[in-house]
Amino acid sequence: MIGKYVSRLADEEDFLMAKKPTGAATAESMAARQRDISVSEFFLKNRHLLGFDSPRRGLLTAVKEAVDNSLDACEEAGILPEISVELEQIAESRFRMTVTDNGPGIVKAQIPKIFAKLLYGSKFHRLRMSRGQQGIGISAAGMYGQLTTGSATRILSRIKNAKAAHQIHVQIDTRANKPVILSDTEQDWRPVFQAVDAEGKPQGEPSISNHGTSVSIDMEAAYQRGRQSVDEFIKQCAIVNPHLSLHYAVTLLGKPDAKNLKPETGNLSKKEGTSESETQVSGFRSQVSYLRATNEHPRIPDEIYPHPHGVELGMLMQMLKDTGSRTVKGALASDFSRVSAQTAADICARAGVDPQASPSRVAHHEAELLFKAIQETKLMRPPTDCVSPIGETQILAGLQKEIAADFYTAVTRDPSVYRGNPFQIEIGVAYAKPENPEIKSDDPVRVLRFANRVPLLYQPGACSITKAVCGVNWKSYGLDQPKDSLPVGPVVIMVHMASVWVPFTSESKDAIASYEEIIAEMTLALQECGRRLSVFLNKRRHDLEAARKRNYMELYIPHLALGLKEILDLNDKEEGRIVTDLKKMLEKTHLDV
Amino acid sequence: MIGKYVSRLADEEDFLMAKKPTGAATAESMAARQRDISVSEFFLKNRHLLGFDSPRRGLLTAVKEAVDNSLDACEEAGILPEISVELEQIAESRFRMTVTDNGPGIVKAQIPKIFAKLLYGSKFHRLRMSRGQQGIGISAAGMYGQLTTGSATRILSRIKNAKAAHQIHVQIDTRANKPVILSDTEQDWRPVFQAVDAEGKPQGEPSISNHGTSVSIDMEAAYQRGRQSVDEFIKQCAIVNPHLSLHYAVTLLGKPDAKNLKPETGNLSKKEGTSESETQVSGFRSQVSYLRATNEHPRIPDEIYPHPHGVELGMLMQMLKDTGSRTVKGALASDFSRVSAQTAADICARAGVDPQASPSRVAHHEAELLFKAIQETKLMRPPTDCVSPIGETQILAGLQKEIAADFYTAVTRDPSVYRGNPFQIEIGVAYAKPENPEIKSDDPVRVLRFANRVPLLYQPGACSITKAVCGVNWKSYGLDQPKDSLPVGPVVIMVHMASVWVPFTSESKDAIASYEEIIAEMTLALQECGRRLSVFLNKRRHDLEAARKRNYMELYIPHLALGLKEILDLNDKEEGRIVTDLKKMLEKTHLDV
Repeated sequence: MIGKYVSRLADEEDFLMAKKPTGAATAESMAARQRDISVSEFFLKNRHLLGFDSPRRGLLTAVKEAVDNSLDACEEAGILPEISVELEQIAESRFRMTVTDNGPGIVKAQIPKIFAKLLYGSKFHRLRMSRGQQGIGISAAGMYGQLTTGSATRILSRIKNAKAAHQIHVQIDTRANKPVILSDTEQDWRPVFQAVDAEGKPQGEPSISNHGTSVSIDMEAAYQRGRQSVDEFIKQCAIVNPHLSLHYAVTLLGKPDAKNLKPETGNLSKKEGTSESETQVSGFRSQVSYLRATNEHPRIPDEIYPHPHGVELGMLMQMLKDTGSRTVKGALASDFSRVSAQTAADICARAGVDPQASPSRVAHHEAELLFKAIQETKLMRPPTDCVSPIGETQILAGLQKEIAADFYTAVTRDPSVYRGNPFQIEIGVAYAKPENPEIKSDDPVRVLRFANRVPLLYQPGACSITKAVCGVNWKSYGLDQPKDSLPVGPVVIMVHMASVWVPFTSESKDAIASYEEIIAEMTLALQECGRRLSVFLNKRRHDLEAARKRNYMELYIPHLALGLKEILDLNDKEEGRIVTDLKKMLEKTHLDV
Repeated sequence: MIGKYVSRLADEEDFLMAKKPTGAATAESMAARQRDISVSEFFLKNRHLLGFDSPRRGLLTAVKEAVDNSLDACEEAGILPEISVELEQIAESRFRMTVTDNGPGIVKAQIPKIFAKLLYGSKFHRLRMSRGQQGIGISAAGMYGQLTTGSATRILSRIKNAKAAHQIHVQIDTRANKPVILSDTEQDWRPVFQAVDAEGKPQGEPSISNHGTSVSIDMEAAYQRGRQSVDEFIKQCAIVNPHLSLHYAVTLLGKPDAKNLKPETGNLSKKEGTSESETQVSGFRSQVSYLRATNEHPRIPDEIYPHPHGVELGMLMQMLKDTGSRTVKGALASDFSRVSAQTAADICARAGVDPQASPSRVAHHEAELLFKAIQETKLMRPPTDCVSPIGETQILAGLQKEIAADFYTAVTRDPSVYRGNPFQIEIGVAYAKPENPEIKSDDPVRVLRFANRVPLLYQPGACSITKAVCGVNWKSYGLDQPKDSLPVGPVVIMVHMASVWVPFTSESKDAIASYEEIIAEMTLALQECGRRLSVFLNKRRHDLEAARKRNYMELYIPHLALGLKEILDLNDKEEGRIVTDLKKMLEKTHLDV
């Protein structure tokens, strides 16, 4: 320990005091300044953490949070989701976002807190796969709208069999992180959805639900196309949610100009594409509908208990304190997954802790012994019914729909576990046709990232998906690859992580943290796809080479025939037959290059 | 609006009900699950957001948070900081971190909240440059220790003229985000600091303070060397804080093996160096002292009011509601910087709002008018005394001390403003000598990142500093540069951002968010350094070329002399003189290449 030496007597205090700069504080004056920081104040000042750092990204984040909530609600209630997203420009730099769903609706008393209180929700305290998990997103979107326009979040919601819908206008008191209700009325409302074609003409009859929720927020925003746009989010969202019908409309005050189509300044990704083939801009409004491709509802994933191997010592102590069980053995068996009564008894025996002891009275050193015993006990891996992958078939269908390619492949890995949390990795790869103008063969490959079926458009550099793709040796699969970088080629790689808890690198949920186990699973799946790609590329190279040889020989067949004609003294007809025969032989021969 | 079309009558409900998957919820059952999430629960589950995602990074983050707090406290109290950092391995994967300072100490009543409550502190609610700003860091380190070892944070603190020091052991109740005090005793304690040399021998007399704070936390941790290590943090910390004396000691249970020296698995940065020249490992303990290079205390930066051009509409409305002034004019003049009484009157006039109106009664549309009027009013830029740069002299001194180079330059830009927050960018560049083994000429340049004098070691890819360096066209300054990447060469680039509010991309404070204004300032400073570097590189290239030509001509001088000898029929002595003369001429001539 520094500090145990014999001291020198001179205290520097006097010397230092003389040089003390003006404005110096004391322990007492500093104490007087200490105070609580509300979580809303914190995120208001740090709104870039939530994805609201620019007008363009703010719009995307708001749409993403609203759509995530709608999809989660529909799926949890077993309803095939139908959602409309409306963006309406109401001033030069201001948009009104309205997202409407056919979900189960929200009980009136919960509306204010769900939409105007950070860290409030149903998804945080359970282990089950869902898009939302933090209880922050939609309230943050409302807070951003309030900050930039001073307006309120407007919610309209009707639950099944309800007399009427509730319309509530709510703001957030950021000092207290509490909702302030500005108005609360009843209204006759049923959400209506109308599919449109590329020209914006209604297709078929509208669909009406007798329940659902609509949220509307005004905010400072900028609408631009490109790879990080709402357009792209909507499109990718439709790809990975084939059971979703999604209607998307944008209304602008003026004609969309070059500015709308240019990538945002400060955005380093130079690969901004113009993949708006489906959204035909006609004057002031553009519309598109993505209709569901399947009526099959994804299986509702199970909720699980924590797996003992993913629980840390401090958490174990907390769980023993909080358990409803009256014995340690009971707590282990009932609050954890994969622990039977017998296993619980074994753990207690190994730890030398009385299985009948009261869990709340377990001492620190006993908890350590239990923790150690748990680590040493072989347990089944966590149950994996709690994650619901997209599946190889749907991934292939999605890629085939969106990318004209010569080769497609998909891999859904078996579920695995990081820090006790089950997760599952899925990869799709497409090798684009050479005529595809969006995917160039001398650009880095395009990586589409998804977490629990949500497209991730920002912060690719911070994401373990990018790291995993860069970390694979693509040269051995036939693609060029600069050191530590994305491989180069006309390739689209789609990566999906499904988990009961996706470890995002920030509250804006744009990038997946680099846990070793996650990168390892991604790497294995990428390598499998890489091997398949290399088989395709080798075959193609082989075919091209064979074609080249064949062409080369075809070139000489007439000369060969002429030579034979002269040597054997053949007539023109015989010469012609030789040419034909040789060509036929050539076609039949498999040229082993 | 989608939703205004005539509806079709058939409700899909019955059809969907038939296919509804098992486990479906209703609005009511979902409402029953909604609940509050405490901020500690949130960050416990998301501890990677705070920088505690691996044992190695956890140790670094804990040291960083403790050292940041110590430095802030010393500087605020006008004390020249002396700090010791002790890392003691207490089990295979467990370390005890103890950080002790000679700061002003902490008033007893504040200790539990400061160390065991997230979002509590003195730095969040003011605009003044400091290392800490969130009120999360040190409590998070304690929470991480508690989670992984079940132990408490131990604080020892003595304020000036106090009878004794307080020793408090505290844990955090994560459900409530509240401190739980485990013990509270008085003790006679004065922090003692002993400088050591490279062999660990005490140098000079120990220094004793009669006030200070020591915090000790046990945690799961891994000690490893390299570019993202505690060693590196300590070293860089000493470089950018020349007024700091820093003592650093590591005690390991066994000899440091290859594992300690290897970069962490899963860490993608392959550039992990071995810059441990100053920390001599001798058996089980290594020690080093960095003594202060200056006794001059950095100026205590001023606290400022928000600048009106950086305040958004919602914030303006909130400030009008909260003001102590009784009139709108008064509120504008007193709560904002750069608004005189006259300017406040002008803004009211322009907005058509009564300057004598009560601020709390300003309606939404009036606030909008005021907001617009503020944007249209020319105002002085925010005061910049609130940021305290390192300065070009100190940056050059720091670089010269650490990097053997042929060329150094530094630029401190004038302060600028993003979102109303003053900030200042400083850059230092060194072109290393070819014999430096750590800095290779075919590797990407090494970028050292700092924010408010704190070294940033993680997440370089997410940081605007990296983006700014990649965004400059270094080819025009004579360095190779792959597209969109770091330039290549034996160059170290140091970038420091000083601000009243550094916009970090996550709570772990590892990377600066990419605000346009920040990137622009960095770019200008980098370009200035680049121009100077290119002058140096051109000169060097010129010199090399001239030397080459001279060598070339020297080669021919004897032949020339021999030729002249034969033509003019000279003797050997005359020939020799011609050679000498020609060589002299060559040396005098400036060869313009």
